Amino acid sequence: MSPVSGFPEWLPEQRIVELKWMDDIRRVFESYGYCSIETPSVEEIEILLAKGETDKEIYAVKRLHMDDEAGEPRLGLHYDLTVPLARYVAEHFHDLVFPFKRYQMQRVWRGERPQEGRYREFYQCDIDVINLDQVPLHFDAEMPAIMYEILSRLEVGDFQIRVSNRKILEGYFRGLGIEDTISAIRLVDKLDKIGEDGVLSLLQSDLALPREMAMRCLALASIRTSDLSFVERVRALGVESDLLNEGLEELAFVIEALHTLPRGTLLADLSIARGFDYYTGTVYETRLLEFPNIGSICSGGRYDNLAGAFIKRKLPGVGISLGFTRLFAKLVAEKRLQSGARCPTQVLVIFPRAERREEVARTANLLRERGLNVEMYHSPSKIAQQMRYASRKGIPYVWFPPFEEGGVHEVKDMASEKQVVADPATWSPA
Amino acid sequence: MSPVSGFPEWLPEQRIVELKWMDDIRRVFESYGYCSIETPSVEEIEILLAKGETDKEIYAVKRLHMDDEAGEPRLGLHYDLTVPLARYVAEHFHDLVFPFKRYQMQRVWRGERPQEGRYREFYQCDIDVINLDQVPLHFDAEMPAIMYEILSRLEVGDFQIRVSNRKILEGYFRGLGIEDTISAIRLVDKLDKIGEDGVLSLLQSDLALPREMAMRCLALASIRTSDLSFVERVRALGVESDLLNEGLEELAFVIEALHTLPRGTLLADLSIARGFDYYTGTVYETRLLEFPNIGSICSGGRYDNLAGAFIKRKLPGVGISLGFTRLFAKLVAEKRLQSGARCPTQVLVIFPRAERREEVARTANLLRERGLNVEMYHSPSKIAQQMRYASRKGIPYVWFPPFEEGGVHEVKDMASEKQVVADPATWSPA
Repeated sequence: MSPVSGFPEWLPEQRIVELKWMDDIRRVFESYGYCSIETPSVEEIEILLAKGETDKEIYAVKRLHMDDEAGEPRLGLHYDLTVPLARYVAEHFHDLVFPFKRYQMQRVWRGERPQEGRYREFYQCDIDVINLDQVPLHFDAEMPAIMYEILSRLEVGDFQIRVSNRKILEGYFRGLGIEDTISAIRLVDKLDKIGEDGVLSLLQSDLALPREMAMRCLALASIRTSDLSFVERVRALGVESDLLNEGLEELAFVIEALHTLPRGTLLADLSIARGFDYYTGTVYETRLLEFPNIGSICSGGRYDNLAGAFIKRKLPGVGISLGFTRLFAKLVAEKRLQSGARCPTQVLVIFPRAERREEVARTANLLRERGLNVEMYHSPSKIAQQMRYASRKGIPYVWFPPFEEGGVHEVKDMASEKQVVADPATWSPA
Repeated sequence: MSPVSGFPEWLPEQRIVELKWMDDIRRVFESYGYCSIETPSVEEIEILLAKGETDKEIYAVKRLHMDDEAGEPRLGLHYDLTVPLARYVAEHFHDLVFPFKRYQMQRVWRGERPQEGRYREFYQCDIDVINLDQVPLHFDAEMPAIMYEILSRLEVGDFQIRVSNRKILEGYFRGLGIEDTISAIRLVDKLDKIGEDGVLSLLQSDLALPREMAMRCLALASIRTSDLSFVERVRALGVESDLLNEGLEELAFVIEALHTLPRGTLLADLSIARGFDYYTGTVYETRLLEFPNIGSICSGGRYDNLAGAFIKRKLPGVGISLGFTRLFAKLVAEKRLQSGARCPTQVLVIFPRAERREEVARTANLLRERGLNVEMYHSPSKIAQQMRYASRKGIPYVWFPPFEEGGVHEVKDMASEKQVVADPATWSPA
């Protein structure tokens, strides 16, 4: 009767922090005008596989006593929120206003081998903008602005949002005359993991590039600047292509639009490519400086056509996804998220004797109507026992209604141990 | 590419209302000091079935490419939040403070045949109090108080919370000398569905009760009062048993403790039994007066031992569960939930020309920092086009930053069409 491996579960005091995170994230998404959607946890497996076999392991879902399921569609739990978004946009196309700006905070499921930092069920928090035919670059700059605000609020420590544009690597490699640009991009994307020497030797061994050309690939991928100087540094490498120019202009637009973010939190990093994914322009990754080994906590980019499998309209988009549970679980494990509170209660109202029930309940209701979270102690018992309950649950205030007719109300601050006369109709916590 | 039948999905404007409902419910739960927990969507099937075969249809979950799953536990999606709570309490027993007051708002899954008002995936909002050895009656009265507040806030129309106590039916039937009290309770529980004549004839045919005795059963089940007068009416039927007395005392305590609720919203209704369930004392049902045919929207009761299958401690509890999606979907279908808003945006900031980007962005950020939900229009375009976007999305205010250096800010109220000069550092919506 232990938890199923890979399916995280939190204690109430951790859940309080998780809920606060969720609230903060939602607050920022909405402050930029993104609307919430939720999609079912399951999709037809045909839809989950519509983009071709996925490398994500799908969980299939089937009625346990399947006596009459013939003809019913095969169902699976969604493994991300992008495929469901594509299906949603196609399905509700005529009911949506474009550009469609949505956020989605839901659990997703992947049948991967559980290991540190990998879960089989986890929350993702995604924002995407989908439009007809083309998406203004404005939104490519909005994504990091939003994630910067969220990560600052969550107090996750120092972080770096790294941005690039796939057109830069692609255009540069084409300009160099490399044919298999996809493979070259994949190799360069490993720079963070295997280092310069590793990439250099793979470019030579796997792609049979001469050492000098491999060096020139690496020279591009090593460019990392916090301002627009990456443009000159690329130009200085002497490679020319229209696609490269386009990529440089787009990335420059994004970096320029975000010049008000604190220096060091945003980088143009030309090694970023987001591996196998279907991104076609801007790409994002985000690192926690203190915990680089958990990888990118927040990634995304721009894609040309979201829902091609489901609708005959070109629907490009740009989006970014926060790997909520991986980040949260890491900070829980590092004991960085101590809220102190074990419940939402702010005030415990003491219940001294059965005959005072009416008065005690009235006091609790009065405080509650004023917006406070209030427990009335659940039975007339010894005061010491009620105080012990308050301190075990970390309730900050204990309220003493009059024990006799005509007495006064008092409230005790459990931290300072100060107890004062108070009026339930006007009192507020410090 | 249509939605999978039985898995509801909402448009953004409906989701805005759903989110507001969720917020309201959570707010009330927390105002009574209940703490949030979430459990994984899946449990081991052995755990889901620990109480014996369930009548709920379980969805099994399995990796699609199960190459190496030998020895892994069989998993299923939870069909309620009570079994997961039992497992959670047993598992985290030593980390919880008792009485453990928790709320849980999650999706559950049932492989039932989809039909009106039945879903295969739906939200439930549960509160329960679990304690060691015994749970004070105080909490039996707290459940309807909480649900009354929630349903009032949600504006679902007139409703009636009906309360009874299983000990009353059970004790009364025993006092009458009926042996198969369980079957008698089940039959009486159908009163709402099949009427008095139906119950009367079933009691005679199925249980072979003489007509006079069947009439006496019905006489009890027909008692429905909004005050304590049910006690006298039961006494007047002349049946005696200790269990009956216990039930009457407990129910009287609950009704008395809730005397401040508006008359007619709470009833003692002695026909309520909650069918097959494992309740042993107080039981609850809730009807919408306008839509009686959707059945009870909010049900629950008291049980003697929550987690007997998982831990060798007696853990009684009392709880109530709101069938969120069934209620929400019904009101959506009846067009009773029109929010008007299609997105959270309060203000759209006009972007007149590319050279004004910096100023426009600064204005949007300033308003946003002041707690408003603000979109900056995504590209410099014709003003008419930007206004059309605002009205299609139902954005209530459009902001005009100075179009030239040294100009003034103005804001237009889209409803009244009034446009006034305004300062982004101080302006607030009406």
